[in-house]
Amino acid sequence: MTGSRAPSGNRDYTARTGTTTKMVERTEIRLAGEGGQGMILAGIILAEAATIYEGRNAVQSQSYGPEARGGASKSEVIISSGEIDHPEVLLPDVVVTLSQEAFRKFASTVKPTGLLIVDADKVNSSSVPKAIRLPITKMAFESTGRVITANTVALGVLVGLTKVVSRQALEKAVLARAPRGTEEMNHKALAAGFAAAGRVKKG
Amino acid sequence: MTGSRAPSGNRDYTARTGTTTKMVERTEIRLAGEGGQGMILAGIILAEAATIYEGRNAVQSQSYGPEARGGASKSEVIISSGEIDHPEVLLPDVVVTLSQEAFRKFASTVKPTGLLIVDADKVNSSSVPKAIRLPITKMAFESTGRVITANTVALGVLVGLTKVVSRQALEKAVLARAPRGTEEMNHKALAAGFAAAGRVKKG
Repeated sequence: MTGSRAPSGNRDYTARTGTTTKMVERTEIRLAGEGGQGMILAGIILAEAATIYEGRNAVQSQSYGPEARGGASKSEVIISSGEIDHPEVLLPDVVVTLSQEAFRKFASTVKPTGLLIVDADKVNSSSVPKAIRLPITKMAFESTGRVITANTVALGVLVGLTKVVSRQALEKAVLARAPRGTEEMNHKALAAGFAAAGRVKKG
Repeated sequence: MTGSRAPSGNRDYTARTGTTTKMVERTEIRLAGEGGQGMILAGIILAEAATIYEGRNAVQSQSYGPEARGGASKSEVIISSGEIDHPEVLLPDVVVTLSQEAFRKFASTVKPTGLLIVDADKVNSSSVPKAIRLPITKMAFESTGRVITANTVALGVLVGLTKVVSRQALEKAVLARAPRGTEEMNHKALAAGFAAAGRVKKG
């Protein structure tokens, strides 16, 4: 699972995480936050984007251990163009953390050449130079008036940076899972995420 | 995973599925239906009942293959008092099917000594004598006025028959995931499921 690819000097995470190359057939994603931040739903939506709207294979899971009573909640997605023989995330290509506790537990699990996305306001990540810091929860509030759309913003950021699924597939999957009456809000949250990803890529 | 336990002649599925014995440390559950029947959420709730409210370990997952565009949707839960080394469901102790397509694909996957629960009105299961047939969707409508509570009724039936988690833990987990304003409805759906399980056991 480890490669000898040289670290890229630019900020093209599409290439860096390798999700659009033919050589990499499997992408592992770990989404972590506090209970109530909707990371499980985000994982389900991402898996549905890949499978229902792009015809690929996916496994989405959450493991609950002794820590389930509080603290960090994590959700995992594996997306592949082929069969998924091993349904476990071993060395994630992408890790998203929306809380300090999630960062503490899972930030170090990202693949050395992978992508780490953190909520800049929720996580003190100054010790990890490679982290992409964006005020995800604040962006959710500013774009929709509801912090609970942070998970949708995070999906927009993740897909905008990695292209692990197409924007169109993600939009369809988000809207299919949006409670009636929240479609517009979720659409705005996604757009905010993609816009932020665009600024990171140009930055 | 297979045992030499003699088939029990009575209808005590608690003993039959072995979920309350000390010898069986791992219970595998597969929940299947159509998209929109809420089987993924049912799996998440069951895992949270076991972990957050009973301090055990669980893995909850869904695998999406080429069939994801329609037809049967399945959700899986593994509950264990110990660590879960293999997060795949291999030979489920319990299979629940709420649609004909789900029955066709997954009914035969249940362990020979396991428990198969089907929605009697949705599934023609006459070829499988051992199936427990209950009109789950109809019970949902009759108890709450909403067929979308069928997943909650199914959880009540499953837990009532297997005791894989306590009723109290399941109630807490259901209510923690119930959208605001639907607590009473979900409580009624659960009660209907447990009542039906009680009638099966006595029958």
